[in-house]
Amino acid sequence: MGYKQVILVRTDLKLPKGKLGSQCAHASVEAALKSSRDVVDEWRSEGGKKVVLKAADLNELRKYEALARKEKLTTALITDAGHTTLEPGTVTCLGIGPDKEERIDRITGKLKIL
Amino acid sequence: MGYKQVILVRTDLKLPKGKLGSQCAHASVEAALKSSRDVVDEWRSEGGKKVVLKAADLNELRKYEALARKEKLTTALITDAGHTTLEPGTVTCLGIGPDKEERIDRITGKLKIL
Repeated sequence: MGYKQVILVRTDLKLPKGKLGSQCAHASVEAALKSSRDVVDEWRSEGGKKVVLKAADLNELRKYEALARKEKLTTALITDAGHTTLEPGTVTCLGIGPDKEERIDRITGKLKIL
Repeated sequence: MGYKQVILVRTDLKLPKGKLGSQCAHASVEAALKSSRDVVDEWRSEGGKKVVLKAADLNELRKYEALARKEKLTTALITDAGHTTLEPGTVTCLGIGPDKEERIDRITGKLKIL
């Protein structure tokens, strides 16, 4: 089984599309740059699979962050600078991986695709 | 003036939110990893500004890709693997930069935020 990265997005914020796109990009870049280059290269060579998942709210995001860190997965919790639609410092999403699909699915396998 | 990255998304595809998020993430990661590490580090230290912009269709995306490349900006044109909602090989979005805001605005300054 190959590598993937997942991005958990808070659905309670009802982010507008452009904001959703930029927050997912933040999570993906930060989690990738915190990962080992070997893993990132392998992941990209397979197509760099990324899946965006639904998290209900901040509590759920923090719960999955803790679970992922406990399993030594790379995580990147993203806080919006808040220049526009959101309050400054709003936590919007969480990037996990890239890592082996099975390791990630063990943590986030029950979450629904956004 | 600081650094930013822009992500142009085809509005004619009417991407569902999850797909939009993953395609923006692809564009952001690929354009960042094609850029020099010094520029990426500087950009991230300022907050890693990313702005998602509207492109009407494939022709417009290709036009901006050509304009950006002519100005020696880093570009990453993203093609979806098409396992789900899109036809395989559909070009979805374009990442440009990170680079100096003024250099990027010279190319994409007239595009609207998604």
